This record gives sequence, structure tokens and C-alpha cells, in this order.
Amino acid sequence: MATSRGYLGRTHEDQQPLVQGEPSGPKIITSAIPGPKTKAGLERLDKLQDTRAAFIMTGSNDMSDGNQEPRRKGKECLSILVMYLDMFCQIASLPLGYNSKALIDAASSPEMIQMLVNRPALGIVPHGTWAKTLEHSLMRAAPKGLTQVFTAMCGTCSNETAYKAAFMYYQKQKRGGNEITSEDLSTCMRNEGPGSPDLAVMSFDGGFHGRLFGSLSTTYTKPLHKLDIPAFSNWVSSPFPALRYPLEKHQVENDKEEERCLAIAEEKMKNAKSPIVALIVEPIQSEGGDNHASPRFFQGLRDLTKKYGIIMIVDEVQTGVGPTGHFWAHEAWNLTSPPDIVTFSKKFQTAGWFHGPELRADAPYRNFNTWLGDPVRVLQAKTILEEIESKDLVKNAAETGAYLKKELHVIENTYPKVISAVRGLGTFLAFDLPNPQERDVFVARLRLAGVNTGGCGPKSIRFRPMLVFQKRHADILLDAVERVASQH
Amino acid sequence: MATSRGYLGRTHEDQQPLVQGEPSGPKIITSAIPGPKTKAGLERLDKLQDTRAAFIMTGSNDMSDGNQEPRRKGKECLSILVMYLDMFCQIASLPLGYNSKALIDAASSPEMIQMLVNRPALGIVPHGTWAKTLEHSLMRAAPKGLTQVFTAMCGTCSNETAYKAAFMYYQKQKRGGNEITSEDLSTCMRNEGPGSPDLAVMSFDGGFHGRLFGSLSTTYTKPLHKLDIPAFSNWVSSPFPALRYPLEKHQVENDKEEERCLAIAEEKMKNAKSPIVALIVEPIQSEGGDNHASPRFFQGLRDLTKKYGIIMIVDEVQTGVGPTGHFWAHEAWNLTSPPDIVTFSKKFQTAGWFHGPELRADAPYRNFNTWLGDPVRVLQAKTILEEIESKDLVKNAAETGAYLKKELHVIENTYPKVISAVRGLGTFLAFDLPNPQERDVFVARLRLAGVNTGGCGPKSIRFRPMLVFQKRHADILLDAVERVASQH
Repeated sequence: MATSRGYLGRTHEDQQPLVQGEPSGPKIITSAIPGPKTKAGLERLDKLQDTRAAFIMTGSNDMSDGNQEPRRKGKECLSILVMYLDMFCQIASLPLGYNSKALIDAASSPEMIQMLVNRPALGIVPHGTWAKTLEHSLMRAAPKGLTQVFTAMCGTCSNETAYKAAFMYYQKQKRGGNEITSEDLSTCMRNEGPGSPDLAVMSFDGGFHGRLFGSLSTTYTKPLHKLDIPAFSNWVSSPFPALRYPLEKHQVENDKEEERCLAIAEEKMKNAKSPIVALIVEPIQSEGGDNHASPRFFQGLRDLTKKYGIIMIVDEVQTGVGPTGHFWAHEAWNLTSPPDIVTFSKKFQTAGWFHGPELRADAPYRNFNTWLGDPVRVLQAKTILEEIESKDLVKNAAETGAYLKKELHVIENTYPKVISAVRGLGTFLAFDLPNPQERDVFVARLRLAGVNTGGCGPKSIRFRPMLVFQKRHADILLDAVERVASQH
Repeated sequence: MATSRGYLGRTHEDQQPLVQGEPSGPKIITSAIPGPKTKAGLERLDKLQDTRAAFIMTGSNDMSDGNQEPRRKGKECLSILVMYLDMFCQIASLPLGYNSKALIDAASSPEMIQMLVNRPALGIVPHGTWAKTLEHSLMRAAPKGLTQVFTAMCGTCSNETAYKAAFMYYQKQKRGGNEITSEDLSTCMRNEGPGSPDLAVMSFDGGFHGRLFGSLSTTYTKPLHKLDIPAFSNWVSSPFPALRYPLEKHQVENDKEEERCLAIAEEKMKNAKSPIVALIVEPIQSEGGDNHASPRFFQGLRDLTKKYGIIMIVDEVQTGVGPTGHFWAHEAWNLTSPPDIVTFSKKFQTAGWFHGPELRADAPYRNFNTWLGDPVRVLQAKTILEEIESKDLVKNAAETGAYLKKELHVIENTYPKVISAVRGLGTFLAFDLPNPQERDVFVARLRLAGVNTGGCGPKSIRFRPMLVFQKRHADILLDAVERVASQH
């Protein structure tokens, strides 16, 4: 396969390498993925766990699927090019690439070992240094206007504990200082109202907010995520704008589409069967297909939530921590007032939600669990932040992403029957294939061409590289995309 | 305060110390808890997080609350007696005590650093050594008859993903090989039946299974855990036996009480508004007040779940990993067939559930999330298991617990108006105070006497020591309990 545009020969003198000692590119010497060694490894694992979604095993030579340059143990910073150029990064959750020197150094610090060995129940016996750790980690990244952080272990738990906070807040307002009634206390012990009230969370068609019972009732990606699981039938979804790309070329019709969606959202807020207490929205619908909306749309949502007294939760689990060219994607909206809650996980390696003091429960132990997060992963968030700041990685995502998007548009224009709707912010980019089947084929061929990435929505391909992804890596990707597109 | 029975002078030549270099006992030099330094520390933390449930901060000298022997960094194995004799152990979640040498050694192993730094999305890109890690960690402890493990990060998520597995299994059986209908697919996207079916989980009054939306609908401990949070109103609770202690002295009436509860459970299974798909039960209701039932009762539940085609889930989040004198508390029941699912967390430092292959979902990605647990904590489970085996810690819990229980009965008989209903298995012990207020006073006084422990249920005190808790530590506890009881 020839490279028509010569991406691999390019130089980028404006970008110093962020990582030293990487191989020059991916090398795939198997003719099918998973290759024979991964297959054997997965067979062994399948005796214990469902492996049907797995396709690669990483991290040891004998499982390297024949890659000629497997990662060597202890070798410094082979950050991106392990076996593949990894554009999916453990479902968008690796911030600094593989074998980050900073994370390796932090891994054996006395603080880290302390937290590994003497794991606290943070709600009742926090470590003496916990306030300081939070101040130097998560709180340094707190979105403007949010002064508090609730720590958790995954995105789903973050969203669900945020919903709980919203429900408790709503009921407290409703009581208006009156005491909790004995009816409240007795009915909640039977899962019945008024103690277990019939209140709702609103989210969007195509939105993904997790898979446990509360979050799954706000997730509307595809049936297989929801089928067979009891759900809160009065929780509400509303259409998310279906915009045309590139956005700037379709502004008039896109504006109209967003207005339509805002009008429907307002209608649903007004006429909901059960009061809508919280609204949760992703800055970019990710699992749902990399669907974008404009800052104006999100300002419209903020206005509606204010108007109807609804807690606005921005789910930055996938968009947060830099990839869009802002630390938090919602920073780009310039909202007139901050969201009430911002949830996070993935690239922070730890999870939770930022909020204001009004969303603390009115009594201790109400929004609570044994561990309340894992301080080991919070310590990592501190290192991740330090790396992001010292290496200006958010800016890197913005610049590298701008370059990659520009070149993807070039390929899109060359192969318009294959690739369309190139879109995104920073390196948080995606494009469409004509249909689901062709998308799946394209993803598989990219893997054989040395690029690992993932699909999203019905027919999209998404890129979720690490924050140290640079133009020279983008060239490897572009070369592969162009080659696969040319043969499609 | 004098020690009437002289616990502190006792020797236990049958027990070699499991841990070297511990201080001889707790030392509390503050007159109120939290002491001034903890108070200052909590004040700082309270700016960022709700600290109303917190009472101790651990782990650094300046937060030591004035303890004369704070834990020294790197000092080997000051396992139990840090500031307090810790009988609560981070809400029953510390298996090997503080500063376990084995865990410290494992903390900087290359494998651990690998998993800290290159965290995988286990469902799609498991590490090459993942099968081996599972085989040598969790699977070595798999309950008899259960060959599979689903990994998770906390007890709540374990229970909820187990419920999901039960629901999917039930619906698959119901379809009996027929295809999923388009009505199923479309209705689930609106949170409506039949795609989002109206199915129920059954649990017990006083049971605790977590605090997110699904698990909270199966938790029936106290109103403050449930109030204001929407719940599945058709999910069902049934009375848990209210037994009299000591069990052996009240067998006739206890048998009758258990038969009564089994009859009600069966009645509810037969006449439920929504089909009951799963039953979840703790071997000992912990948060609910250390309520016990006999093996016969649990065999009765197993028989009922078999009779009505209900998945039986044993929630071993708090009882599992040794404290009852069995590795899994349900081993003591000698069930005629194993439970369908056993969930775990806490003392394993990681979480998940064991099950048989029939409970795998019928398609990939259905019971799924980004990380599917944290391999760092799974690696710790391996070390924990090795320590338990090489030091015979389950047997230690049985023997130490037997001694402690016998002596608690002596104190109970001396102060019958203060302490009653001494009960438990292994070191998983509890007793009652006359009422909630006196219980709270007793817990506070125990802390000032150097023993940290927790309450449970309306008026009980529970002990949840680490597995390296020995008779000489029991003596420190007994001395404190006796002194506090004598002054009560």
C-alpha cells in the first residue's frame, strides 16, 4: 500500500517530542487480529471470565501478538507505540500513555505505598494528609465555581451519587425546613412514596451515563445496554441535536435543530409525569456517536435548568482532563453560571464529582460508602495534573488535534464515499463510515495497519489518544487512515 | 480504673505473635475524641468534603491526635496498635492490619507498578498475565462449585452487576431460545416494559447491600440510608429471623422463628407483584445489627430459591475472607447445592462476584464497564491470600474469636444490665447495649480507653478486627470493655 500524501515523511519542527525512546512506528506481523498468541491467552482467560469483547492482550512479550517491538519492562516511556499506535487508550482512560516515567516514579513513592497498604475508609478515618492530597490533586483542577469534591471509583458511581445528591437537595428544598415526617421514614423502608419519592432525572437520546440501575435509566445508547434490566419508567430522555458537519458550514440549520431540541426539552420539563430534579448531559455524546452541540445549546440548557429549578450535571467522564483542548470541555461554553455538578473519571484514573456546598447532604452518612474512592488513584491524578501542566498537554491536544482534523478533512474530501462528517475538538475526533458494517471493517483494517481505535454510535469511528499524542503520531494515523480508505 | 480480671497480665503461649515490633498497647493522651490535631485536620478537609462522619485521621505524626507512639514510616508491621487498638478496621476492610510487610513488599513489585501505571480496560484489552493473576488470586479462593469471577471495584457495584446477571438470565430462560422482539428493543429505550421488565430482587429487613439505586432498593437498614431516593417499589423484603442469644440456649424458639421467616419468604415469592428473580442475603446481617441465622435457615432459603427458580446471591462483602473462622461464612452451612452467586469486597481490597458459567450474559458488552475492577487491588488480593494461607489466619480468627467470645460472656454475666446478647462467629463478634444512646456512649468511652470500634443496628457494638488479631490483643480489648462496663 502506497502513501499518496507522504504523511510518514513529514517533519514537525514546531513540536519537540514529549516522550523519548519510542519505536518509530507500530509493527503488526500477524495476519489476523487477535493473533495466535492473544487467542491462546484469551482462551485461558475465558475459562474464568467472558472474553468475547477482548481483542488484544498487552504488556508481556509472550502475549505481544508477534509485534517485533513489544514493550520492554522498565524501559522508559515507550509511550504510544507499544504494539499498535493506540488511538483508543483503554476506552479513553489513559492520560499519559504507556510506561509514563512520571507515573512510574510516583508508583513507588512512600505516600503511594502508604495508600496501597493502609487503605482508609475515607469518610470516617481519612488519612492525615488527605486534605492536602485533595488540594494538590483534584481541587487544583476544579471547574470554576465548584469548591467541593465527592470522590468515587468509577464514572457510573460518580453519576449515581450525584443523582442522589440532587434528589436529597430537592426534597430538602421541598420540606423547606419542616421536619421529616414519620410517613416519609416508614414509607421509604418499603421503597414507596413519599419517603422513596417518584422523582426523575432527564438525559438525552444517545447519551451514555453508566450501566447500573440509576445510571442505566439515563443511558439511551443502544438496546443491548438496557434490555432486560428494570428501569425507572418515569425518567425522561429528550432529543440531542442531530447536527450536520462541519458545523461552521451548516450553522443556520444547526441552530434551528438546537432550538427544536431545546423546545422539546422545555416541554418535557414542564409536563413530566414525575418532577425532573436533575438533568445530565455529556459535552460530546461519546458512546452515542460523537455527537456535538454548540455552546449556545448548552447555555440554553443552563437557562432551562435555572428556570425550572433543575440541577445541571455535566458528565465529563470521557471529555474531561484535556483531550478537547480545554481541561474540561464545558469551559468552552462560557456559561453564565457554572453547572451544579461536574462528574469525572477515566483520564483522571480516579472518579467523582465537583459541586458547590449546597449539594452536601443534610446529614452525615447519607451519601456515603465504605471507601469513597481509592486514594491510590487520587495520588495518580496529582501526577497526571503535574504532567499536564509542566508539559502543556492541553495545549498539545488542541494543536495536535487541529492538525489532525485539518488533514482528516483532506482525506474526507479525497474519499467522500468512504469517510464523512469529520468532527471534533482537540484530539477528541471522529468521522463516519457509510454504515455499521463498513465501519466495523474499517476498524478491523486499521488494526491490521497498526492503529487501534474504537467505534461509537451506529457508524462512527472515534479517536481517543493519550495527551502526549503529537503530530508525528498523527502522521502515522493519517497514513493508515488514508491507506485503508483508498482500499475501501 | 482497675482491671478486675487481669486480662493485661495474661500470657498466651499457644499463640506465637503473627506480627513483630508492635507497641505494647494503645495510648490515648487526648481527653476528647476527635482530639485537637484531628479537629484541625478535619476542619481543613471540611472545606472540600463533608467530614461529619469522620472522627480520626491516621497516618502522620502531626495528625496523631497526641498518641505517643504514632506509626513510624517504613517501620515494619506496627500492625494493630497504631493509635488505637483498631477493632473496626476501616469498616471491616483491612485484612492484614496496618503496614503489613507482605503488602509493602508487593507494593513495589514490577507487576504492581505495571498495573498502577498502565491500567487496562480489562474487558477489551486485558493484560497478558491477567488469566494467571486471577488464577493465583481470586480463583484460588473461589467458593466450592463456582468457577467464574466477575471483577468490580466495590461491594455495591458487585451486587448490582450480579442483579443484572440474574435479570438477563431470567429473561433468557423466559425467551426459551426465541429471538428478542422488536418490541423488547424499542420499549427498553424508553425504560418501559417488556424491554425494561418489571422484575424484582428480594432481600431481608435489616439487610444491607449497598447504596446506589438498585442495591439501595434491596437495603433495609435505616430510613436515613433510603430517604428521598427513588426506589423500585415492587422489590420485596422479608423478615430476617430475630433470634435470641446465645443461640444454643434458645434453639426451640429460634427454630420456630426461622420457620416463621421461611414461611413468609415463601409466601412472598409466590405472591409477589413482580416476579422475584434473585434473592440476596448476608450470612450475618452486619450493618443491620449483627443478626445471625442458622445453617438450617440458609438451607431453607436455598431450597426455596431452587423451588421457585430464583437466583440465590450470598452477599459476603463483610463476612468473606476469613473473619468468621471460615474463609467464606456460607461454607459453614453445608448447603446441598452452592449459592448461584457469591459477592465480595472489603477484606479482599478488590470486589466482584463468583458464579457459574450459566450467568454469563448471552452477548458481550451487556454486563460491562470501562475498567471492570482495578488490577492493582486484585494483585493485593493475591498477597492477602498468601498471607492468610501461610499464617493460617482463618484458623487464627476461629481460635482468637472463640477465646474472645468466651471472655465476653464472662463480662456479660458480670454486667448483665449493660452488656447482653454476646454473639458471633470467629472474631466477627457483637453485643448489645440497652438502647441506642447507651451504645453510643459505650463506643465513645471505648475510644477514650484506646479501642476503636463501631456500632451496628439500633443498639449493638460490632468487632471487625484484622485477621492478625490475636489473644493478646483480645486481652487489651477485654480489659477496656470490662473497665467501660464497670463504670457504665
